[in-house]
Amino acid sequence: MTTPFITLVGAGGFGRELINWCEDAARASGTPRVTGFLDADASPLDGFGYGLQYRGTDADYAPREGELLLVSIGDPLVKQRAVASLRARGARFASVVHPTSVIARSARLGEGVVVCPLAMVSADARIGDFVAINAMCSIGHDVELGDFSTLSAHVDITGHVKVGECCFFGSGARALPGVRIGERARIGAGAVVMRHVQPEATMYAAPAKKL
Amino acid sequence: MTTPFITLVGAGGFGRELINWCEDAARASGTPRVTGFLDADASPLDGFGYGLQYRGTDADYAPREGELLLVSIGDPLVKQRAVASLRARGARFASVVHPTSVIARSARLGEGVVVCPLAMVSADARIGDFVAINAMCSIGHDVELGDFSTLSAHVDITGHVKVGECCFFGSGARALPGVRIGERARIGAGAVVMRHVQPEATMYAAPAKKL
Amino acid sequence: MTTPFITLVGAGGFGRELINWCEDAARASGTPRVTGFLDADASPLDGFGYGLQYRGTDADYAPREGELLLVSIGDPLVKQRAVASLRARGARFASVVHPTSVIARSARLGEGVVVCPLAMVSADARIGDFVAINAMCSIGHDVELGDFSTLSAHVDITGHVKVGECCFFGSGARALPGVRIGERARIGAGAVVMRHVQPEATMYAAPAKKL
Repeated sequence: MTTPFITLVGAGGFGRELINWCEDAARASGTPRVTGFLDADASPLDGFGYGLQYRGTDADYAPREGELLLVSIGDPLVKQRAVASLRARGARFASVVHPTSVIARSARLGEGVVVCPLAMVSADARIGDFVAINAMCSIGHDVELGDFSTLSAHVDITGHVKVGECCFFGSGARALPGVRIGERARIGAGAVVMRHVQPEATMYAAPAKKL
Repeated sequence: MTTPFITLVGAGGFGRELINWCEDAARASGTPRVTGFLDADASPLDGFGYGLQYRGTDADYAPREGELLLVSIGDPLVKQRAVASLRARGARFASVVHPTSVIARSARLGEGVVVCPLAMVSADARIGDFVAINAMCSIGHDVELGDFSTLSAHVDITGHVKVGECCFFGSGARALPGVRIGERARIGAGAVVMRHVQPEATMYAAPAKKL
Repeated sequence: MTTPFITLVGAGGFGRELINWCEDAARASGTPRVTGFLDADASPLDGFGYGLQYRGTDADYAPREGELLLVSIGDPLVKQRAVASLRARGARFASVVHPTSVIARSARLGEGVVVCPLAMVSADARIGDFVAINAMCSIGHDVELGDFSTLSAHVDITGHVKVGECCFFGSGARALPGVRIGERARIGAGAVVMRHVQPEATMYAAPAKKL
């Protein structure tokens, strides 16, 4: 049987972060290593010394035996389209949880989830597929995070909050207990969400208001 | 001698978080396990699969050999009343510090203190009895935190701050170096406290002003 | 050969924090222990029980065999002057990284850097000499942090940000992707920097504006 390995989808800044966190996870718990990447061209890692193999564009992707894809795309809608396209061609996906993060035993993580260093997912939270949780985020008890949502660093989603699909949270955004946030909403850096948020709304400031 | 065990006081969302963190602490350092709970009725954990024994209401509590209580009540005044009532009936209390948190060797923690994951208590800080420190909080050098105070996640209490009894801090609230915060004050989510705060005041915004 | 040891420069609150974090680092990875301090007088640690030896003032400093200095000065300009003066007399300097912090393998740290607990330095970041990174700070991919800068706790410097020399960030300040922050700027607690910042500017609020 082939040893599983990871191909990174996207080799920008977030992709290079994931290479580092996957190394830490591989050392701590034997998760697969990142050995190559897909990107629009072969050059984004030039000069960085990561030594990964270029494996072509997303558009000409075909699965290899033992290969898991790890998506390093921040924007939720771009991420959703990329996943749909790759999955249609037979891709299987990796999840990665940094070993310094704390995941409550009663929490559930979907497919293709990324949890960066020093984050927490608390009791009975449900994390959808392809959610990205950046460093130092905390996800409270009973939270539901919709598929493809992306949380920047230092975000605090408190207890019983429900977040729809494809939401984006900027650095240090907070959602107070029990609020509902509709799909494709964007919550600005430092915003404090105190009431329900409509789908596709862009919110900013503290308390958060609609742009 | 009986193996010590923990009975949780209150089995809501915060209580379920504490069940998870106590498991982590038990694995890391052999602290006692949570084996049952007190609550107004027997049902709050139904369907969650934690497998804890219902041990009655706070009102009919009587101590068992080897039993330590762990209070999972967020509101400081409710917590204070519950502790007084349980202690009058002979209760002994557990403290729990998540193994990922950092407690300076020169810090002192009171009785019944809860420290959630990825928090820090720095040099020569004094944490009062029954203080709850949620995930990713930092408590600076020489801080004094009054009994029964509750800190939501991501709170930063900086050096030399003194906090009275029964204060509440919302998500991501900050207190700048050296400020005094009177007893029973409530500091809103995201507030930045730059000056002394009167007892019982409710503060919000950055810089924090009185409601 | 003499066993290396650390002399703390400044024994105030931040200095006592560093004594604690160095103990943790010594236990985890064998970095040198703090055995004494320089300060204007011999008394600041009286009554704290740290048991360090007083080694005189900065002004009459002379290097000892095996000695590394660790600078516990928060203010960037004061820190810069102290380092220049000590270095002129032949000082060598220690760096300390708390064992709970995560440093990407592709990041680079300068001389005399301090990284407090539960912080992160991400992929391909460059941390200048004598930078202090307090607890729970995150430094994104490709960030450049200028020499002598000081970050209070919970600061988030996001991807591709460039920070000049001698900048100061208050508690929970954030800089959004790609901004440039000129040398000697001061970013207030809780400020969210969304545009480039001029040298020596003082910024506050969210979005950050000039004082």
